[in-house]
Amino acid sequence: MNRSALNKLLEKVAKGGLTPEKAAEALVDLPFEDLGFANLDHHRHLRNGFPEVVFGLNKTAEQIAALALALNSHGAHALVTRVNPEKAEAVRRALPQMEYHRDAQALVWTSGQVEEQGRGVIAVISAGTSDIPVAEEAKITAELMGSRVKTLYDVGVAGLHRILAANHRFKNVTAFVVVAGMEGALPSVVSGLWGKPVIAVPTSIGYGAAFGGLAALLGMLTSCAAGVSVVNIDNGFGGGYLAGLINRKDQADD
Amino acid sequence: MNRSALNKLLEKVAKGGLTPEKAAEALVDLPFEDLGFANLDHHRHLRNGFPEVVFGLNKTAEQIAALALALNSHGAHALVTRVNPEKAEAVRRALPQMEYHRDAQALVWTSGQVEEQGRGVIAVISAGTSDIPVAEEAKITAELMGSRVKTLYDVGVAGLHRILAANHRFKNVTAFVVVAGMEGALPSVVSGLWGKPVIAVPTSIGYGAAFGGLAALLGMLTSCAAGVSVVNIDNGFGGGYLAGLINRKDQADD
Amino acid sequence: MNRSALNKLLEKVAKGGLTPEKAAEALVDLPFEDLGFANLDHHRHLRNGFPEVVFGLNKTAEQIAALALALNSHGAHALVTRVNPEKAEAVRRALPQMEYHRDAQALVWTSGQVEEQGRGVIAVISAGTSDIPVAEEAKITAELMGSRVKTLYDVGVAGLHRILAANHRFKNVTAFVVVAGMEGALPSVVSGLWGKPVIAVPTSIGYGAAFGGLAALLGMLTSCAAGVSVVNIDNGFGGGYLAGLINRKDQADD
Amino acid sequence: MNRSALNKLLEKVAKGGLTPEKAAEALVDLPFEDLGFANLDHHRHLRNGFPEVVFGLNKTAEQIAALALALNSHGAHALVTRVNPEKAEAVRRALPQMEYHRDAQALVWTSGQVEEQGRGVIAVISAGTSDIPVAEEAKITAELMGSRVKTLYDVGVAGLHRILAANHRFKNVTAFVVVAGMEGALPSVVSGLWGKPVIAVPTSIGYGAAFGGLAALLGMLTSCAAGVSVVNIDNGFGGGYLAGLINRKDQADD
Amino acid sequence: MNRSALNKLLEKVAKGGLTPEKAAEALVDLPFEDLGFANLDHHRHLRNGFPEVVFGLNKTAEQIAALALALNSHGAHALVTRVNPEKAEAVRRALPQMEYHRDAQALVWTSGQVEEQGRGVIAVISAGTSDIPVAEEAKITAELMGSRVKTLYDVGVAGLHRILAANHRFKNVTAFVVVAGMEGALPSVVSGLWGKPVIAVPTSIGYGAAFGGLAALLGMLTSCAAGVSVVNIDNGFGGGYLAGLINRKDQADD
Amino acid sequence: MNRSALNKLLEKVAKGGLTPEKAAEALVDLPFEDLGFANLDHHRHLRNGFPEVVFGLNKTAEQIAALALALNSHGAHALVTRVNPEKAEAVRRALPQMEYHRDAQALVWTSGQVEEQGRGVIAVISAGTSDIPVAEEAKITAELMGSRVKTLYDVGVAGLHRILAANHRFKNVTAFVVVAGMEGALPSVVSGLWGKPVIAVPTSIGYGAAFGGLAALLGMLTSCAAGVSVVNIDNGFGGGYLAGLINRKDQADD
Amino acid sequence: MNRSALNKLLEKVAKGGLTPEKAAEALVDLPFEDLGFANLDHHRHLRNGFPEVVFGLNKTAEQIAALALALNSHGAHALVTRVNPEKAEAVRRALPQMEYHRDAQALVWTSGQVEEQGRGVIAVISAGTSDIPVAEEAKITAELMGSRVKTLYDVGVAGLHRILAANHRFKNVTAFVVVAGMEGALPSVVSGLWGKPVIAVPTSIGYGAAFGGLAALLGMLTSCAAGVSVVNIDNGFGGGYLAGLINRKDQADD
Amino acid sequence: MNRSALNKLLEKVAKGGLTPEKAAEALVDLPFEDLGFANLDHHRHLRNGFPEVVFGLNKTAEQIAALALALNSHGAHALVTRVNPEKAEAVRRALPQMEYHRDAQALVWTSGQVEEQGRGVIAVISAGTSDIPVAEEAKITAELMGSRVKTLYDVGVAGLHRILAANHRFKNVTAFVVVAGMEGALPSVVSGLWGKPVIAVPTSIGYGAAFGGLAALLGMLTSCAAGVSVVNIDNGFGGGYLAGLINRKDQADD
Repeated sequence: MNRSALNKLLEKVAKGGLTPEKAAEALVDLPFEDLGFANLDHHRHLRNGFPEVVFGLNKTAEQIAALALALNSHGAHALVTRVNPEKAEAVRRALPQMEYHRDAQALVWTSGQVEEQGRGVIAVISAGTSDIPVAEEAKITAELMGSRVKTLYDVGVAGLHRILAANHRFKNVTAFVVVAGMEGALPSVVSGLWGKPVIAVPTSIGYGAAFGGLAALLGMLTSCAAGVSVVNIDNGFGGGYLAGLINRKDQADD
Repeated sequence: MNRSALNKLLEKVAKGGLTPEKAAEALVDLPFEDLGFANLDHHRHLRNGFPEVVFGLNKTAEQIAALALALNSHGAHALVTRVNPEKAEAVRRALPQMEYHRDAQALVWTSGQVEEQGRGVIAVISAGTSDIPVAEEAKITAELMGSRVKTLYDVGVAGLHRILAANHRFKNVTAFVVVAGMEGALPSVVSGLWGKPVIAVPTSIGYGAAFGGLAALLGMLTSCAAGVSVVNIDNGFGGGYLAGLINRKDQADD
Repeated sequence: MNRSALNKLLEKVAKGGLTPEKAAEALVDLPFEDLGFANLDHHRHLRNGFPEVVFGLNKTAEQIAALALALNSHGAHALVTRVNPEKAEAVRRALPQMEYHRDAQALVWTSGQVEEQGRGVIAVISAGTSDIPVAEEAKITAELMGSRVKTLYDVGVAGLHRILAANHRFKNVTAFVVVAGMEGALPSVVSGLWGKPVIAVPTSIGYGAAFGGLAALLGMLTSCAAGVSVVNIDNGFGGGYLAGLINRKDQADD
Repeated sequence: MNRSALNKLLEKVAKGGLTPEKAAEALVDLPFEDLGFANLDHHRHLRNGFPEVVFGLNKTAEQIAALALALNSHGAHALVTRVNPEKAEAVRRALPQMEYHRDAQALVWTSGQVEEQGRGVIAVISAGTSDIPVAEEAKITAELMGSRVKTLYDVGVAGLHRILAANHRFKNVTAFVVVAGMEGALPSVVSGLWGKPVIAVPTSIGYGAAFGGLAALLGMLTSCAAGVSVVNIDNGFGGGYLAGLINRKDQADD
Repeated sequence: MNRSALNKLLEKVAKGGLTPEKAAEALVDLPFEDLGFANLDHHRHLRNGFPEVVFGLNKTAEQIAALALALNSHGAHALVTRVNPEKAEAVRRALPQMEYHRDAQALVWTSGQVEEQGRGVIAVISAGTSDIPVAEEAKITAELMGSRVKTLYDVGVAGLHRILAANHRFKNVTAFVVVAGMEGALPSVVSGLWGKPVIAVPTSIGYGAAFGGLAALLGMLTSCAAGVSVVNIDNGFGGGYLAGLINRKDQADD
Repeated sequence: MNRSALNKLLEKVAKGGLTPEKAAEALVDLPFEDLGFANLDHHRHLRNGFPEVVFGLNKTAEQIAALALALNSHGAHALVTRVNPEKAEAVRRALPQMEYHRDAQALVWTSGQVEEQGRGVIAVISAGTSDIPVAEEAKITAELMGSRVKTLYDVGVAGLHRILAANHRFKNVTAFVVVAGMEGALPSVVSGLWGKPVIAVPTSIGYGAAFGGLAALLGMLTSCAAGVSVVNIDNGFGGGYLAGLINRKDQADD
Repeated sequence: MNRSALNKLLEKVAKGGLTPEKAAEALVDLPFEDLGFANLDHHRHLRNGFPEVVFGLNKTAEQIAALALALNSHGAHALVTRVNPEKAEAVRRALPQMEYHRDAQALVWTSGQVEEQGRGVIAVISAGTSDIPVAEEAKITAELMGSRVKTLYDVGVAGLHRILAANHRFKNVTAFVVVAGMEGALPSVVSGLWGKPVIAVPTSIGYGAAFGGLAALLGMLTSCAAGVSVVNIDNGFGGGYLAGLINRKDQADD
Repeated sequence: MNRSALNKLLEKVAKGGLTPEKAAEALVDLPFEDLGFANLDHHRHLRNGFPEVVFGLNKTAEQIAALALALNSHGAHALVTRVNPEKAEAVRRALPQMEYHRDAQALVWTSGQVEEQGRGVIAVISAGTSDIPVAEEAKITAELMGSRVKTLYDVGVAGLHRILAANHRFKNVTAFVVVAGMEGALPSVVSGLWGKPVIAVPTSIGYGAAFGGLAALLGMLTSCAAGVSVVNIDNGFGGGYLAGLINRKDQADD
């Protein structure tokens, strides 16, 4: 069963000719390879509570639904990022079980309960209001990996006192995800204050010499503060995922 | 006592008019602020086994020695990066206690024993022979933070089988530092194989369209693999430091 | 007969006042020069089974139809790239003989049978789902040049085992076309595995530091793997054409 | 008398065949135009206590001496920037009256007393040790314009408490010059703290993604803080000059 | 009361269920912190006649109205930049007290009378007709800070004589804001003519090698003229704000 | 035996304490893995007449000699690129068997006879005199792969007639390597004339807007001519290697 | 009478309340300064048969009409570039005298007869079909300056023989305008063939590594051919204008 | 006789074993093709008083001498650019007839008298002292083409009055070459003042955001002034050559 067969199956679901449950049944016994998801199946540990992510931006609602259904049928948490409300609506007509997080622009379908797996807490901090969607994407990702997440939004370098005031909230933080556009100075400050790993996420917010996130990216990379590393512009998922990995309880390797 | 006074004191040491021990005595009771190191003293936790780093590239041997002496006199491990052999020689004439790591181009002066503080092990991997100095800088940094470090050098994407063969060596790894120039594809591969946090360090090795590390940097940032984040080009210290933070035993916050 | 005359003739065809056959008759005896296609006619060998390509992106349906008709009337295979479904529909109202390949976004009008001319097989591989249109453009181009083409889509660096599993399918491959966006690491891997010529096609798929294909382009250019060369971003035609040339049976020069 | 004549005259001075005083006498009655300094003479106000600047980097010691002598002979303060110690030595052999500021890499020849002309005080702040030469260039420039200058060096974003502690020193500041390399975040902080005009001077200090000052430049330009403007990379003179203009006592226009 | 509560309150106002006056009453006694505006409240001096700015580009009419209402309820002048006529219309349905400046694309709500606070006058000069919106944004900002502003629009380097003719208008100018796209040469000229501080604002006007304002930005930064500094591309607010700071009457620091 | 042991062995050879023959004996029975050359050993086919390349630019004479010796001891042709005459001299003191090609700046040590393996001939063409070293690097590489190579140097776009005159020399060419700096237009022309695969090698020759080869690179990538692909700037090896692959006699896959 | 007054007058004309003739009468006696066109009036020679150009892209139909009317009322030829058909239609409703050149996307209003002023002929050559609008803009500009223009469109580097065949048409050419996108190699070729001044106009035609005309621009700048200079991307007006200047009959200076 | 034979012949001349006259005799009867200068010989018109240029930067003194001798032996004016004094000295030891222009860093060997061929005069203007070598290169080039040249150096935008004062000197100018670094604003001004063709030559003079001439290049390209075109950074030869072409007396085409 290849992907176009999968799409046809989905169309039936969408038109009411097949329930999602029946569709899942039809899929569950096939190996991933036959579904075109083979690039997942050697990552055995992935299914151990890690979300499978689908980058939704260039995909149609049908493609998204097909991918989500297949993932769910194999017991994986499905996370679809960069889905605008219209497309989310269309996906949910076929798969009403999926939950849409408007702030994060993400669709989520957990496979059973997400199990707590963190050593401590992850803190997600954003510099501006416009950075919130990226921050929320990070938050949802980390939560699907079994981490507890605390957030502090809308603090810039100029709002240092709010960060300082939040000190008590950040007990037991094992990793910070700091989301910022423009000149991207916030991660340095956070790193200096708490001395914990900081994953910096530059955003494309800004204009002129911000050059679509380039200024923030370069600023974060050249930050003098030790303990800061950077993911791609607007890549909230990447920031949350890495923080989730860092926060994981230590496990015996297999 | 300001920095120029410090330099004069150092000159005496260099000329044999003062022993390093006497110089340290003269310094130990002064607060950092008076030494021009005030930007360290509110980071109380830093002296808790974290190395203090000095970027040695644009500094003279005298400046380096002054900084190292002051750090040592306050009980901090001193790490000086980007020191070529000639400059190291000059520094060691004044401060023969400092140890020079030629591969890492780094001078080190530990303040007493470095205490083991890691949950597990850090793995440092480099793609090419020319990337080794950056990798060694990462290794020394992590070790000074109390982490055990294992290394695997000179594997490129073309050397996948060597990485796979090394699997058994990477038990209990809590973080990977992956150092690579040219197209920088190695971190994706490492992330895919072990599912642990990967700190990617692009290097300026390469020519033509490598543009001084830009190609590696962009490649690492846009890597499809989740769990990878990036530090500045050639920033071995930054990679090792973040890995050291990740590997730290969990501690009660204060 | 200049191009505007050609356009008028086409309008008649579109409105049913003239059959395509009659139009072709009107054109076939004119030299290319008079049709504004003179830049083709000294390439005598081109008509020896090579497709003539029209870049369709900025052209109107009428312009495309005019160019296709003229090419066909002189016995050339016509290939029009970058045609969206709406424009394709419009062209096919005038020239229903043209075949639209939706995946490749291409219109094709072969002049008689395409003759098998290859020494072996061409393999077209894509890293992601979003890269498929570019890959399909490469495939169609190579096929029009008389090559047999095998495809393997949706494998990334993380899907190495799928590539390895496909080893048996790639007997007798004389050239690979490898299409990839983001960090563009796939061509190195393919080159390392089979040791055959690899034409890398970077795509504009990605966001943030992908910078519209620049990251993939630089990564491919700086790849350590020997045997890889690169064409323009999204230039599936270019990749397929070069592969077609490489795969050609050796001929006596004339 | 053109510039080459001027150079010859200088050579005599350098060889002891002419005293600087005699040389100045020979020059003082000539209009600037004849000396090749015509681009100064319509700026009447400039001689009203403003320094004339010579960019020393690409000039020989002889050229510098000729320019300085001519400026001095017309009553202007001469400021020569970017002069290394060797070149300064060579200039001072001919013109021992010139004072060399090693930290600022600048040669100065004031024409009589510099008159205090400021409404308040200018504060020059640098982020790192390596930024000091640029900061000192700003300081000397502002002082030659009749401003009092206070400095605070070697504070980064991580050294906020030192800046805060310095609050009492910055009474009556009318303009800040903030010099910083790497990610260039310091100007935002300064602007937020005191609400006074901030002239940000990015420096070329840094490596890798600092791209010779580009990261600092973009960071400063996209800073969210209002009240910050930017001059060219390493342009300490420009920063000090603008601060000097801002600090000037209001004058009746003429 | 968090921001979403604020939005709900605004919706009531918009639907007529609550007068703006009542809404303001409900807000005035809450500290800024509770409104999500905490990053303002430690800037005590800001409320001393300085406008609070809201960057309107990515905000909805509702968000803008909520922010404006909160600012006004605490006695701050509210300035909203980058508001197109449609959005302005929508905001003014809820808050008809806000004044829309179409040329500047800005909404303004002054809190009582704006008090004259300038030492002299600010001059805003634009190079082309298309630069006027940015120039008007600078003008309004400076006026809200208590400065008198004179303008001269549509003069390029080619229109030098118009600038010269305007000389008499620029008595008592303490700062120039010079707005220019394309090659951005105007600030140098203005600086040369009047010897007063010049804040250069590059604009994104232009095409081809203007690269969205980059050419103007680089030109302004590398200008040989002393006394010029630069803010971000299209940042009229930044230019006007800095000019307003420069023009302020000297005050006893507190 | 690790690489440092290898270096010591080499030093003995260099000092006359060991003949190269003895050194090779000592090495030949060790698997590559133990020599630190493991990244070669799974490329079984490589030893089938393909040269092993060592990028000599950042390596010492000792390192080069060690690598060459190890390769030779395992029966591989050793090719070392980017070796200046001084370094070559130093290498040849230890290994006088190595042949230095001054034009190509390359050291070569063939392992027995190079066997003719080509279907036809490779043509290497350079645009300018300064491009010759890169062209010669391509030539030597292809020859080591068993290809016959013809060259035509110092033809630019302006020298089209020379290219045309050379037509008869290019019978049986299966691939062109075209080396050009500046605007890089030559590959298009060559592709248009012969309709064979063209590997374009941009060079860093040029100044100003050539930007170290960027102009040539972009020009070659955007060339309208089908059948052209590009390798990294100055990468003569890459061009020659790919041409060698294309020219290879078809072989049964294994 | 300022520009807004001018706009009102135009509205009357547009609504039929005033004839263009009457409007012109109202304007003709006002000096340019009062119309906001002062930047023209010191260019006395401009009105000597030179067109006044209005960049139409960001202007409304009303603004365009106002500017055109004012120019015409003072005896200048009005040329408005970058006007799409819809906007042209709107302008022509108010000013039906203006002639729209659809190919050039330009509106023209000649003030009386354009007088022949050329020494010879200008040749405008374009590489591709998509470059024609830019080429036509150059052609119209040169014609309005009194030059005769010959055109040759749709020849690329691959179409050299067509250029050669056109040799006889280019007798008495004093300047070439060569318009090309992609790799921009055509100007070198033209310069080599005729040895006359070549003004190269890069266009934004292309995709991927064409980077909006950057590849063409760099290629043209680094062309080895002497006698080529470059104007801004897509700046057909600039190319035509300069060619017009070059072609002008020599005149006694005034 | 190929180039290496030519070099040997030159060595004899250099060592006194052969007079230049004898060497020239040996060369004069050989066609250019045999000398490796074939790319000149189809440009018949070139020898009609046009200089042949050799880019001296990357060439040895021997190569330069060989090329110059060959050109001279065929009656061409030889111009060698970018020759530093040491290399010039070395060339002149072999060919003392060559004249070295230190300001222009150029060697010249005219073949007989340079014949006046200009319609008028060429004006070469430079912005700064550091731009003079580039300007002088332009001057010498134009003079070798038979043009009279006037120069005005060291005027920046700030020195407008000097340009204006020079008005009377620029009678009968047919083309301006304007050389400028930094922000490159001078060409616009010159174009505005005289309405004649302006060839702008950006220079690499500057620092920081000048980016090696990029700022000047972009500024010149985006200049609003019509009548300006641009050549490569530091390409004084290109500017002078084009000006020489423009200034040429009209000739009957052949």
